[in-house]
Amino acid sequence: MSMERVYNFSPGPSMLPLSALEQAASEMTNYRGSGMSVMEMSHRSKVYLDIFEETKAKLKRIMKIPDTHEILFMAGGATMQFSAVPMNLIYKTGAADYAVTGNFSDKAMKEAKKYGNIHIACSSEDRNYSYIPAQRDINISKNASYFHYCSNNTVYGTEWKYIPETEGIPVICDMSSNILSKPVDVSKYGLIYAGVQKNMAPAGVAVVIIDKSLAGNEHPLTPKLLSYQTMIQSDSMPNTPPCYTIYMLGLVLDWLDSQGGVEGFEKIKTEKAKFLYDVLDDSNMFTGLAEKDSRSDMNVTFKTANKEQDAMFIKEATNAGFVNLKGYRDVGGMRASIYNAMPVEGVKKLADFMREYEAKNK
Amino acid sequence: MSMERVYNFSPGPSMLPLSALEQAASEMTNYRGSGMSVMEMSHRSKVYLDIFEETKAKLKRIMKIPDTHEILFMAGGATMQFSAVPMNLIYKTGAADYAVTGNFSDKAMKEAKKYGNIHIACSSEDRNYSYIPAQRDINISKNASYFHYCSNNTVYGTEWKYIPETEGIPVICDMSSNILSKPVDVSKYGLIYAGVQKNMAPAGVAVVIIDKSLAGNEHPLTPKLLSYQTMIQSDSMPNTPPCYTIYMLGLVLDWLDSQGGVEGFEKIKTEKAKFLYDVLDDSNMFTGLAEKDSRSDMNVTFKTANKEQDAMFIKEATNAGFVNLKGYRDVGGMRASIYNAMPVEGVKKLADFMREYEAKNK
Repeated sequence: MSMERVYNFSPGPSMLPLSALEQAASEMTNYRGSGMSVMEMSHRSKVYLDIFEETKAKLKRIMKIPDTHEILFMAGGATMQFSAVPMNLIYKTGAADYAVTGNFSDKAMKEAKKYGNIHIACSSEDRNYSYIPAQRDINISKNASYFHYCSNNTVYGTEWKYIPETEGIPVICDMSSNILSKPVDVSKYGLIYAGVQKNMAPAGVAVVIIDKSLAGNEHPLTPKLLSYQTMIQSDSMPNTPPCYTIYMLGLVLDWLDSQGGVEGFEKIKTEKAKFLYDVLDDSNMFTGLAEKDSRSDMNVTFKTANKEQDAMFIKEATNAGFVNLKGYRDVGGMRASIYNAMPVEGVKKLADFMREYEAKNK
Repeated sequence: MSMERVYNFSPGPSMLPLSALEQAASEMTNYRGSGMSVMEMSHRSKVYLDIFEETKAKLKRIMKIPDTHEILFMAGGATMQFSAVPMNLIYKTGAADYAVTGNFSDKAMKEAKKYGNIHIACSSEDRNYSYIPAQRDINISKNASYFHYCSNNTVYGTEWKYIPETEGIPVICDMSSNILSKPVDVSKYGLIYAGVQKNMAPAGVAVVIIDKSLAGNEHPLTPKLLSYQTMIQSDSMPNTPPCYTIYMLGLVLDWLDSQGGVEGFEKIKTEKAKFLYDVLDDSNMFTGLAEKDSRSDMNVTFKTANKEQDAMFIKEATNAGFVNLKGYRDVGGMRASIYNAMPVEGVKKLADFMREYEAKNK
């Protein structure tokens, strides 16, 4: 490369491993002697089905997904699942419980209201979503068809450190922003979904991991492509899936393997987050936005004394090659999103930059 | 390239222009000095929004889309639109008219039955979908909210040569397999949609071109991402769109421009189709499946005397570098899909191969 790559702290779409990008580029016009790009392959051809099934198998192995659960690739990202989850799962009782701990869980809850009675099982709105409620503060309804939560809140920079106990009610989790960052006991979930554009692949698909016993009760008006039953029965191919995005996911999973899998990334993400939280804890200039015991290892949110100083910091950081540090519009301040593909070195350099910036500007 | 590219006659996903693939590869790790891949860009960043808006502007210019209509990029391909069209548009009267002229129009019709009363305005099932009904054979209902048809039938190899007259009822068209192959008067349509994976881009999005006055009457259970009104109001970004697919569309449109736009491709596609139809008309071995006046310029379907000879032809053609010629499973025989990105040379060589094959095997 003649030009250097930047450290991109975007909350999603976000950095991808350079090795995956380089492999994609090298295979772009001719995938392994097939004479065509993966973009040009019939989704029913053997060469593509091999890519598809291998990607599924890799994800199953890496996440230790039990045979009770099926992996689906569905169009539209996590937001489409905000609709698909209630359309498929709420009609058992007509009601569901939602934990509201941030922007996306609030959106999921509001979309679900179209389809049934929604009970807020817990909320952290009282302190501006700066924390994750404790188990004792979750009120599960007796008649909920499921309990829904978002395991990591990108906007506010908080992360659940435990899987909620729900007295047998299926747990549904939007894991878009921390999937593959650590081992997860998939058997505890009725359904996990994740838009891939934060920690898995370029935007264009949601990975859904569903306990197959939950499928088959969808509302009669459910669009065909949003029916979990249809997707299970057709192995995610009632129509042409987003083939290239799935191929890219496979390349990212190869890289993940080479770095020690989810066990490896649990150590790496903890180390990366600590670099930045240590800066915040030592600083008189930067303040973290999340309460300490709820801090996210994926999205580190912080601010200075005022908007002008935030803007000045963001400008100088950008000039130094640390880009997309601006916080979410409703929150302000800064946000460093440090998903798997953000190198340790990038986070360490940002931490050093912050310390130097404070020293220079105090 | 060390290995040669093949002539890929896949019905979709299908060939893409080599120049677009090469440019994508060259920009993969660092898009024009941004320091990142297009896959890694925040969809709200200026660098990505420029790509997005330029792609929309190119499509608007190339297709001469009037200001009454809006371009949307929606997840899920044409099949998702089979649901979105009735969910958004049928509730004005609760009824719609469908022309059933092949596999996909039949699927669209069946999905629409979930949402309202469907009247078959015309069908070519009586002669195994080998023709397109004439205007005089289309029966429009007085109370239809819209009339739906599929302008090119990939499976059977037939193509509409006219835009149906509907007595003022909005015309909805699935144009997945012949969009951008010729100029189209967009103003005559209430809505055009196309899965991009045949003639526009890699799989992963549907382009929807909607008369804005039709939006806003969706069923209350319509998923947020399937609401045309929501998509219009948010410029296709209520959430992260399939960013990279849209970028690829932009590269394909640049190439389309360089070849004379849709006016250029109208000539090219006519020339390409004629190579193959001339072979069929001269042949004692190969028979076309579509009636002559309904033949598609995008998908040329044909067969030999029996399945064994079909299989032998397909095998020898594959060995000669003409791949994915096998017909759709319910139809059998052969199908040569010759969308814009299939070079004239590839079609000419296939025609020559067919003539030589017949001479050798008669």
